[in-house]
Amino acid sequence: MSVTLYDLAGADPALRFSPYCWRTKLALAHKGLTVETIPWRFTDKERLAFSGQGKVPVIVDGERVVFDSWAIAEYLEVTYPDRPSLFGGPVGRAHARFINGWADSGLHPGIARMVVRDIYGVLAPQDQVYFRSSREAALGATLEAVVEGREQRVEAWRALLAPVRLVLRAQAFLGGEAPSYADHILFGTLQWPRCVSSFALLAPDDPVAAWFSRVGALYGGLGADARTV
Amino acid sequence: MSVTLYDLAGADPALRFSPYCWRTKLALAHKGLTVETIPWRFTDKERLAFSGQGKVPVIVDGERVVFDSWAIAEYLEVTYPDRPSLFGGPVGRAHARFINGWADSGLHPGIARMVVRDIYGVLAPQDQVYFRSSREAALGATLEAVVEGREQRVEAWRALLAPVRLVLRAQAFLGGEAPSYADHILFGTLQWPRCVSSFALLAPDDPVAAWFSRVGALYGGLGADARTV
Repeated sequence: MSVTLYDLAGADPALRFSPYCWRTKLALAHKGLTVETIPWRFTDKERLAFSGQGKVPVIVDGERVVFDSWAIAEYLEVTYPDRPSLFGGPVGRAHARFINGWADSGLHPGIARMVVRDIYGVLAPQDQVYFRSSREAALGATLEAVVEGREQRVEAWRALLAPVRLVLRAQAFLGGEAPSYADHILFGTLQWPRCVSSFALLAPDDPVAAWFSRVGALYGGLGADARTV
Repeated sequence: MSVTLYDLAGADPALRFSPYCWRTKLALAHKGLTVETIPWRFTDKERLAFSGQGKVPVIVDGERVVFDSWAIAEYLEVTYPDRPSLFGGPVGRAHARFINGWADSGLHPGIARMVVRDIYGVLAPQDQVYFRSSREAALGATLEAVVEGREQRVEAWRALLAPVRLVLRAQAFLGGEAPSYADHILFGTLQWPRCVSSFALLAPDDPVAAWFSRVGALYGGLGADARTV
């Protein structure tokens, strides 16, 4: 029996770009679970009513419904303890929660301010109306104004990846010699802009770019083979 | 037999403020090891010649000499596997390396620019000469000019702790329900300015301040009872 995942999609239903859904897809693959994804759009709120909230990722695993990428990772670890571990134990999980918070609070706002206009560009028409009005209200400017000057801002954003570079001097993955959910977290963060935009967030000679390719090649090339614009 | 630690000291030999030495002191206490500390000053380079380099922390454990706080933590974990774990396994250790890099690359530069003049103030006279000239060369300004305006900069620095606050919503320690070396890392980072300066880096109502008190109370109050200016 396979797990069902509601997965954010663009106008092209094969374009899947949510950082949180990517974390979940890699975690499911890490556990060796078969997944059936259902393309979902921002304005399909009522299709998630069964989950008691309105955001993806949501998974349905038999009778169980779980939402929120972090909660899903914890659920998978507890439910499938005999499959490859995502966290390597409670301390590994506790430390991964820090990395999750670091990516969300430290990296995501800067990425959004560089590619939010590109996200708008890939959305289905009904989502575009919702996305522009909700994001412009939150950001206090038009999407076009927000992304302006991103070429000048990308260097400062790249500097935020310094701790990742320090880690990669000593180990191939954030999880050590093998990938862990920490790798899924950061991969999801970086896959998001890659899928929606041709703007290069990583310099090609950045060790983080080599790591991104390594993680993209895992699980049969799940991340690397994703549809992009 | 106890472990010997060379520990950075001020003019007052009881004032011990190195963030890296604090990490090591907490890790040694976590392992339940008895420690004899030797006050060491920046200009005592030749007293560390036996270690093959010139920085503290350096520990001497029987025949073994180990330097660098991260290397010491790994050494203690491997050498004393039956004592309480610092990392909770290889994945926990790999993830802690990220937190170590995050603290060093993300938090330390901003702290230095707020308290470097206070550090100078607590040093022994021979260290003051060395410290002023080496730091002013590195920072490109006088110590007094570097710290100017710190009251305006501290809010932006506090924002860097956002991932810690996210973690503390869910768990009491960075290590989870109990402290791990990740807690020692961040505690060392924050103990450094606390020991040398009366400038308040943390707002009193910050959840990070409550966590700092919790960690300070561990190991018989090792951190909380430290000499401060």
